[in-house]
Amino acid sequence: MFIIGERINGMFKDVAKAIKEGDKAIIQDLARQQMEAGADALDVNVGPAPEEPLRAMEWLVTTIGEVTDAPLAIDTTKFEIMESGLKLCKSKGIINSTSGDKEKLDRLLPLARKYNASIIGLTMNKSGIPQDAQSRAEIAAQIVTSAQEQGLAMSDLYIDAVILPVNVAQDHSREVLETIRQCKLLCDPPPRTILGLSNVSQKTLDRSLVNRTYLAMAVASGLDAAIVDPLDKDLMNSMITAELLMGKQIYCDNYLQAYRKK
Amino acid sequence: MFIIGERINGMFKDVAKAIKEGDKAIIQDLARQQMEAGADALDVNVGPAPEEPLRAMEWLVTTIGEVTDAPLAIDTTKFEIMESGLKLCKSKGIINSTSGDKEKLDRLLPLARKYNASIIGLTMNKSGIPQDAQSRAEIAAQIVTSAQEQGLAMSDLYIDAVILPVNVAQDHSREVLETIRQCKLLCDPPPRTILGLSNVSQKTLDRSLVNRTYLAMAVASGLDAAIVDPLDKDLMNSMITAELLMGKQIYCDNYLQAYRKK
Repeated sequence: MFIIGERINGMFKDVAKAIKEGDKAIIQDLARQQMEAGADALDVNVGPAPEEPLRAMEWLVTTIGEVTDAPLAIDTTKFEIMESGLKLCKSKGIINSTSGDKEKLDRLLPLARKYNASIIGLTMNKSGIPQDAQSRAEIAAQIVTSAQEQGLAMSDLYIDAVILPVNVAQDHSREVLETIRQCKLLCDPPPRTILGLSNVSQKTLDRSLVNRTYLAMAVASGLDAAIVDPLDKDLMNSMITAELLMGKQIYCDNYLQAYRKK
Repeated sequence: MFIIGERINGMFKDVAKAIKEGDKAIIQDLARQQMEAGADALDVNVGPAPEEPLRAMEWLVTTIGEVTDAPLAIDTTKFEIMESGLKLCKSKGIINSTSGDKEKLDRLLPLARKYNASIIGLTMNKSGIPQDAQSRAEIAAQIVTSAQEQGLAMSDLYIDAVILPVNVAQDHSREVLETIRQCKLLCDPPPRTILGLSNVSQKTLDRSLVNRTYLAMAVASGLDAAIVDPLDKDLMNSMITAELLMGKQIYCDNYLQAYRKK
């Protein structure tokens, strides 16, 4: 499982405060902690608050780059902020994200090629987020086709089937699992699959329980990557155990520690 | 999810001791506790120790019947003990279990009909437990065909894809999930699917973690029933949450309590 740590996001108060005050230590601690907890990459999102979001992104990417060479997922809807983030990445960048809309794909796929970045494609478009797996998979197929036309390797394309909170869109969670399965049949090699996991548990009483249960279910459905909070140890233990049970890691008694030392 | 409580089994020391000493209270407490924790039925296994296993089964079934009308899964390989247990069931009996061997099916399916019992069919035969999903599903298909010939309703047939311990047969866990999916395609209506879950975690260091993670994965694959320890609260919370995420229970904030009160 390719784990993208979600904690460096201006929606969290500590991150918003650090951006406002230019407090590098808070950001760099979060970067280090997430990597030590098993993250393979870090999401970077300035949040809704900063007065100068482009400068905030540049500062975050540079600040994180001082302590880790990890790939960074530049998480923004603004094209200019996306490019400014990608430019400053020390290693691989990840575009987070494009929808299935043609005008988005036409701008962001060439950007991925230009910066040798990966890209996350959401199974949604101007009409919204489809309810059923079939319609989600159709948007995924459009993204795959566009990516192939632009010469992007399937290993650089992550399809995100867009999980919604179970408390408001309960019928989606099953469809998203089915979409993950269907994505594996779109082409050979198939695109990778990813989930922005924490959304499933918004406003539920035990968020970690909902997150880790759904993550195990998604791993059983073939999920390759997830944007999660790697500091949630119970979540990471579930993910590692699910991968073990899918045969993606050789069993040993201390398989949890073995995974973390990888 | 149809939950069969596994705790009344002579493999557990407290149960073996209670059988030996004729201590009803221990057995009846275990019956009550499991039902209160969310079990829908109770497994009954005399274990390897008793000198008179047939009398031990009769005593267990009668003792449990004094405190609950729950369906009982008579868990024995001996035909005479099976029939003696079924005879004494106050409500529905469940035959646990038959293999896919013709001579077993020819004796146990008519027994199921005679006592209006359900039956658990293991996807194994004299040749052993197949490694891959396809071969397991072939045995399942043979069991389904025999059951249909005998006039058994598919709602009374539970196919158990036989999960082995992940520490010795790691490649099986993924195949069992795929078998569960394939069983749903065998006929319409399909047979139910069940797992003797705890076997997956034999001799692992954190059994509950392995059990609850695999159960969530199996629910995502379409599992209908499981033989588990319902007194493992973390396990039950994972199961209830997985069912919620599959849309099998309507969301409410207190969905865990709502499930238990059902």
